[in-house]
This record gives sequence, structure tokens and C-alpha cells, in this order.
Amino acid sequence: MLINKTPSESITIMTEMVMPNDTNPLHNLMGGNLLRWMDVAGGICSRRHSGCICVTASVDTVSFHSPIRMGEIVTITASVTRVFNTSLEVFIQVEAEGGDVKTRRKCNEAYYTFVGLDEWGNKLSLPQIIPQTTEENRQFDGALRRREMRLILAGKLKPEDATQLKLLFNKD
Amino acid sequence: MLINKTPSESITIMTEMVMPNDTNPLHNLMGGNLLRWMDVAGGICSRRHSGCICVTASVDTVSFHSPIRMGEIVTITASVTRVFNTSLEVFIQVEAEGGDVKTRRKCNEAYYTFVGLDEWGNKLSLPQIIPQTTEENRQFDGALRRREMRLILAGKLKPEDATQLKLLFNKD
Amino acid sequence: MLINKTPSESITIMTEMVMPNDTNPLHNLMGGNLLRWMDVAGGICSRRHSGCICVTASVDTVSFHSPIRMGEIVTITASVTRVFNTSLEVFIQVEAEGGDVKTRRKCNEAYYTFVGLDEWGNKLSLPQIIPQTTEENRQFDGALRRREMRLILAGKLKPEDATQLKLLFNKD
Amino acid sequence: MLINKTPSESITIMTEMVMPNDTNPLHNLMGGNLLRWMDVAGGICSRRHSGCICVTASVDTVSFHSPIRMGEIVTITASVTRVFNTSLEVFIQVEAEGGDVKTRRKCNEAYYTFVGLDEWGNKLSLPQIIPQTTEENRQFDGALRRREMRLILAGKLKPEDATQLKLLFNKD
Amino acid sequence: MLINKTPSESITIMTEMVMPNDTNPLHNLMGGNLLRWMDVAGGICSRRHSGCICVTASVDTVSFHSPIRMGEIVTITASVTRVFNTSLEVFIQVEAEGGDVKTRRKCNEAYYTFVGLDEWGNKLSLPQIIPQTTEENRQFDGALRRREMRLILAGKLKPEDATQLKLLFNKD
Amino acid sequence: MLINKTPSESITIMTEMVMPNDTNPLHNLMGGNLLRWMDVAGGICSRRHSGCICVTASVDTVSFHSPIRMGEIVTITASVTRVFNTSLEVFIQVEAEGGDVKTRRKCNEAYYTFVGLDEWGNKLSLPQIIPQTTEENRQFDGALRRREMRLILAGKLKPEDATQLKLLFNKD
Repeated sequence: MLINKTPSESITIMTEMVMPNDTNPLHNLMGGNLLRWMDVAGGICSRRHSGCICVTASVDTVSFHSPIRMGEIVTITASVTRVFNTSLEVFIQVEAEGGDVKTRRKCNEAYYTFVGLDEWGNKLSLPQIIPQTTEENRQFDGALRRREMRLILAGKLKPEDATQLKLLFNKD
Repeated sequence: MLINKTPSESITIMTEMVMPNDTNPLHNLMGGNLLRWMDVAGGICSRRHSGCICVTASVDTVSFHSPIRMGEIVTITASVTRVFNTSLEVFIQVEAEGGDVKTRRKCNEAYYTFVGLDEWGNKLSLPQIIPQTTEENRQFDGALRRREMRLILAGKLKPEDATQLKLLFNKD
Repeated sequence: MLINKTPSESITIMTEMVMPNDTNPLHNLMGGNLLRWMDVAGGICSRRHSGCICVTASVDTVSFHSPIRMGEIVTITASVTRVFNTSLEVFIQVEAEGGDVKTRRKCNEAYYTFVGLDEWGNKLSLPQIIPQTTEENRQFDGALRRREMRLILAGKLKPEDATQLKLLFNKD
Repeated sequence: MLINKTPSESITIMTEMVMPNDTNPLHNLMGGNLLRWMDVAGGICSRRHSGCICVTASVDTVSFHSPIRMGEIVTITASVTRVFNTSLEVFIQVEAEGGDVKTRRKCNEAYYTFVGLDEWGNKLSLPQIIPQTTEENRQFDGALRRREMRLILAGKLKPEDATQLKLLFNKD
Repeated sequence: MLINKTPSESITIMTEMVMPNDTNPLHNLMGGNLLRWMDVAGGICSRRHSGCICVTASVDTVSFHSPIRMGEIVTITASVTRVFNTSLEVFIQVEAEGGDVKTRRKCNEAYYTFVGLDEWGNKLSLPQIIPQTTEENRQFDGALRRREMRLILAGKLKPEDATQLKLLFNKD
Repeated sequence: MLINKTPSESITIMTEMVMPNDTNPLHNLMGGNLLRWMDVAGGICSRRHSGCICVTASVDTVSFHSPIRMGEIVTITASVTRVFNTSLEVFIQVEAEGGDVKTRRKCNEAYYTFVGLDEWGNKLSLPQIIPQTTEENRQFDGALRRREMRLILAGKLKPEDATQLKLLFNKD
């Protein structure tokens, strides 16, 4: 039987140091390495929530604004926002800091979705998430709109049927 | 002086074999590793087009449908679709095959954008792309609509001002 | 001017998944890989406390009781226990869990010491730590005894002058 | 039943960026890393031709003339030249380029041979190659002479019985 | 039947070059990487002595005095000092050298203990070691005292019962 | 001033364990990984002899007969055979063993040549080697013939001028 959980029960913190092989010729962290670390953090968080193997189903648009320098410390925080039967959405935040914790700054954030599988690769029903804080409830509500967007982009939903998104494009 | 190029002048093919450390507990390639390989291929393609250092600016939504098994061969093809002054969009396709080339199948595709920088990190104007084939022209045209979507998602464009996208959501 | 800090200001949490290349022929995490992860966590924690580059000065005896399986999740928590002018001691705890957070178990703990250096490699005075909780005070007090042990083992203190340790060996 | 193929059906292109850990103290790509990349490209090409697992049987002499700098892009192209019942020869070419594709230059070339194995490690008969172009025919013809050289070096052929090679050493 | 061996039958020499990703921001080898290399050397040495899988049981205190620079060559020598039924102690020495073998210098030394396991993870009795040289005999004798220290630190021996160690703390 | 050395002064022993990521789908060490390890061992040996940076100039034909299994221990021994003004030849031997040192077997051998460079990449004169044993003298003598072969293969010597090799092909 599936036991529902709060987001804090599966929150995952990963800390990495940017090494020479992680950087581009300007000595900044390459975007692809950050995407990989975020995927690992999200996968661990999903597994902690669901108790089963979770594989990446999709990654929403990610932007890279603030370069992260070689030698800096990267903190990645992943938490489950909402569960959709066999898939779940994870919100992933990235912060970087130089020599001193006071220099810590927000760098990126992204939504990854994962599906839970048994050992033969069949999809599993996942335990629900019970948001507790105001911020967790805000993320829980927003997850529906983000899911519509994913379904449109995957060609599984017609834009004109995306009720949540239409509100966004036609607020006049 | 910037010399314009065709997409075929910078097309980039990367071939990788899926090794044990690239896989999840089901022995399939982890999504994050594929995102990293796609980023490397896109960065090389951008550099071939522009002749300068290119860093990742954003990644559009990526979906993972078809699992790629340990030991399979992954072919990643990256080509420039359109240049926007200091940034450019790269279309990245992923194919996988098992022991025999006849088993080759499409797995993923994504759009990454890169910005060109000089060695002090300042943005550079980039040479234009001259699409040649029907497919290259289709990608060139679609790039405008995808750019509007990115600007909306980054909060830099109001949805009601996205003229290309509004057509998509209101085709009645 | 050095600003003293509490342990919670520099606490560092690292999360790793045990991959095939991290394991021995029994598919358990190799001890040396865990020692390396603990060192990275301790170094980041030291840097967060001190704001300068910190290099490993010594590692106290580490025992390995509970094997950690391939695919398990390892959580490493590092916190500063005490500062000795130019060096500081970090307490590092290791927990492992399988598919479900409920299986989380304590695996290892160790004390690492680090020294703070400027960019030419000269030792720096470090900010003091202000323990807050009962446990933090217990660790702060025990650090003196552990330091005597290190000095004896390094041949810098005669066993008969180790006032704290003699109490331990002669309590009758 | 084995279906013969043309070289273009299995040609393999690998693209790599030279990262800090790939270089020697002069910041040039280490020879051994290039040998490894060439082996991977050759192994993939062999597998594409044969449809079975292919392992390296031998590497012919490789020379290193033109250093490849850190940050440069390396393109490795592998194609089957000839099949000898259970083994096949692959021709591998290496090109490097700096920031701009115009700087692309030839760096190395080598012949690797592979044998095809079933999953218990037994040798398999391999499909024949049907050279198409003038260059492919030239490589196909030269393969016999290179094979004699390998057999001599492996002590399996007496130099005086190497009919192709004797022509080379006694053209008067 | 177990066949006893001399230390020279299982001595293990590992040579590594310090690469960029192995170093801290001062370009010196990170302590944790050295601990990992020492563990690998000790594990191979244990396996050569015992003929079975050996996993790390504990590491005695290690100090880091002499920094090792990027690009330097590290030589690690591991040899069995004494066998305790199902565990054995390995002495591990680290030397570093710059461009020329004449600059070789001692850097670290440590004692690691390993236990021998069968493929189901059960402890195995191990063959005895027969020390030959004066130095090997000195290490053999000292191993008893180091073992008492480990048992005390693991809480398995009361300090007042450590007969060998008491001599050390009370020599008056 | 250059000081001549004996081969034993620069002999280099490297020990590696075959990890999952080093292997092909049959769980045997990939040829390219062995070529890389041999290159590293040869480069360290060259540097120990010459005291300067040494880069790979060429690798002579290498054959792979005896597969090396995952988890096996690989011992690579490199020693200088002869010095040719600015280049030197290194003989590299590979042995593998399973769980027990008694299973040690010869697997591969190869000749690599290296050139010594100063920090601007200019070739340097290298100290001579003084062979001591019968085997070292045999290698020293054979090095001339192998060098002729390399010069022919590099197109720098006409086969009919290769006095040492002609003897080999025309012994009647």
C-alpha cells in the first residue's frame, strides 16, 4: 500500500565542487554538466519519495544566466512538487558560492519529471505528495499548468484544449 | 568580418557507447548523461559555425521516450538552425542502435541555444546561417516561434505580445 | 577581521549514488571511494566556515562496518567541531539507504582536520566556532583529546605529556 | 546468413573535445588518450559492419606528428577496409581543429584489426566488404600487404614467404 | 589449504600521475584522492597475499605533510605486515617526484586493514605472513600494538586492558 | 650536463584493477584502455630517465591475444631500451592475474617511442642509456632494427636502404 508523504521527507541536497574537467575554455561550468547533476539529484529525490526506481521522463526549459566558476561550490536542492499517478514533477534549484558562504547566489532552477518503474520496466503507481507550506502549495498548483505545456509540446494535447494555459495567453 | 555559412559547414556528429557508469539500475542510459552529451555536441557545432567560444544559454523541453540500453551506440547530430545576433539555436537529434546498424532508431531531439563570447566573456555578433534544404528552411522558420516561447518562459516577453505563439493557441 | 560562526552556518550535505565503477567485485562501495567523498565534503565545509582554501592535514582512524551496495544512495554530512588557530576539525557522518528513505542507516563516521591557506600556501588564522547545541558542545570538548592523540601519533607530543589521554588510560 | 556491405554503411564519426585531464604538462592531448578514442571508434565501426561484438586484435604502428591542444576539437573517422574471414581491418583518421572549422588539419591515421565474437567468446565469420570508390579499392588492395606485415611481426609468417612485402623491399 | 607467504610475494607498486582533476585550487593533490589510491594499492596487495576478495576494514590515522604538485609522479608501495586470522594489516608508503627521479621524496605512510571474503561475503581464514628482513620483523611486532589501538578506538577493548599500549603511556 | 643512466634507474611499474567502465560487452578489458595505460607508464619511464617532459612519438604494432577479465589486476612494466639523441624507445610489458598471484600471465608487449621537450615544446638532447644485463643488451641491439622499420613506415627511409631489415627479409 502506498503511503503519502510530505515534500520534506524526500528533499535532496547535493553539493559539488566545479573541477577543471567540468569547465569550458572560459573556466566556467559547462551547461551540460549542470543538467546532469540536476538529473541525478532529481532521480534520488524521486526514489526517496516513491521507494522505487525512477527514470527521467522530461526536462522543462532551463536557462543559464549566471556563470559558475571553476573551484566554486554548487548546491543542488530537489523536492517533489506533485504526483500524477505514474509520474511526478521535481523542482530543482541551483546555488553557487565562491570561497565564502556569504557569496552564495541563485543560478538556475528547473522542473524535471520522472516515472516510477518496477524491475521489469513497468510503470508503477506512486504515493501522493501532501504539500505543507505556502510555497509547496504554490508549486503544487503550478504543476498542472506546466503539465499541460509538456503535453502540448509532446503533441499529446491540442493547444486549444489547454484550459490552464489559455488563461495565460488570453488575459485581457 | 563575419562570413555567413550553411548548416552543413558546421554539422557535428558525435558517437558514444553506453558504458556501465552511464546507466541507471535498470541498465538504461541516464537522462542526465544524454543531456550532457547533447550539450557537448551543440557546443562544438556552435563553435564550428561561429569560430568563437560558445556557452549554453538555454535548453528547450526534452522528453525521453525510448530507453537506450547499456552497450548500445548513441549517435548525436547537431546543426545550427538560426542565428539571432549574439545567440544561435542548434537542433540536436539522438539515435541509438544495438549490435547492428539496422536496429537504429530515433530516440530524442531538442533545441539548445548558445551565445558566442570573446575571451573576457563579452557577447559577440555571430555570422548568419543560410538554410539550403527544405528541412533547413522549415527549422529556420520555426526558430522564431521557439524563441518567443523561451522569452515568455524567461519572463522577458508577455504572452499576449507573442504574435507567433498566439496563432498557435487561437487557431479557430 | 575574522567573524566567528556557529556550526550550522557551514554544515555541508553531499549526496552520491554508488555507481558500478565505485564498487569492488562484491558490488559494494570501495572504502577508498568513501574516504575521498568524505574528504571532499570536509573540505567544502571547512571552506564555508573559513572563507579560504582548506587542505587536508590529517584523517583519524576510520572503520568500515556496514557494506554499502551498488545503486544505494550515500548521504555525507560534515560539520566543524573546533578551530585550533590555523587548523580545524570536521566531524563527518555517512548514511546509506536503498530504494526507500526508510531503510536509511548509519555507516561510518570520522574526524578530518584541515588547515586554511592563502593563495601562496601560507597558513591563515581561522575564525572561531561557537557551539550551540548539547551535541555540538560535546564534540567541541572531545576535540582536545582527539588532538592530543594526533600529536602523539605524529611524534610531536610525548604520550606521558598527553594530560587528556592519560586520564583515559589510567582511570582506576 | 551474412549480408555483404559497402564501407559507407558502417562509417563511424566520433567528435571529442580535449579536456584538461586528457593533456600532458604541455597542455597537448596525450598519445594514449588518442589511441583509446581511435580504438572505440574502430570497435563501433566493426560492430556496425558485422552486427556482432568486435574486440581489438591488433594496432599497426601509429605516429604522432602534430600536437593537438587543450580545448581543440578532435574528429575521428573509422571505416572498414577489408574482411579476412573472422577478422577485419579498420582505417582510422584523426583531424583536429581550433576555434574555427577552417583550421582543421590531419593529425594521425592508423589501421586497427578487430575480431568478431559471439557471446561465449567464439570467433564468428564476418560479412564481406564491397569497396565502391577508387580510394576504398586502394585500401582494400593494400590490406593484404599490411596483413603480411602483421603476421611476420606476430611470428606467424616467415619474412621470406611474405610475397607482397618482398616486392616492396626488392624493387630494383 | 592455506600456504603461508613472505611479504615480497605480494608487494604492490602503483604509479600515478597527478592530473588536473585530482588537485585542489592550489594545484596540489587532494588528500582524499591519495587515500583512495592507497586503498586500491592495499586492496590489490591483500588479494595477492590471500588469493581472495579483500575489502577495507579500517584505516589508521593518516597525516599530510608534504604537498604533491599537479604533474608530479606518485609511487605507492603496499606490503602485508601481519595477518590476524580473518584480517590482515597492510603498510602503505607514498613517494612523489617531479620531473626527475632524483627529486623523489617520502610523503605519507599509513596502515590499512582488510578482511578476506568469499563470494557470499563470509569471512575467510587467511594464510600467515612470514617476515624475512629486519624491517619486516619490526613491522610484524608493531602490528600487535596498532591492533590494540584500533580495538580501543572501535570500543571493543578497554584502554586499561591494552597491555602493549599501557607500556607506551607509562614508561617511567 | 646530461648524466647517463642504467635502465633500472627509470624502470616503472604500474598496477591497475580492471573496472566495469574499462570493459567491452564480454566483460574483458578494451584494447584502447590498455594502450592508454601503456602510454602513461611509458611516459613516466621516459621522464624518469630524461628528467624532462616526454611526449609520445610513435607506437609500434601491438597485438592482443589473451583477454583480461573485469576485476583482474594488470601490471605494466616499462623500461628504456635505447636513446636516439632526441628520442628514446621504451619496452612495455603487460601481465594480468586473477584472484591469486599464481595465475599471473604475460598478455602483451610493445615498443613506444617518446621525444623529450622543454616547456616551449623544443626537442632536447637526452641522456644515454647504459644497458647492464644480457636482456638489456639484446633490447639495445634490436632497437636499431625497429627504428629502421619505423622510418620506413613513416616514409622517411626507403626500404632498399634499410640495411638491418634487408638482412631479415633476404636471409638465404
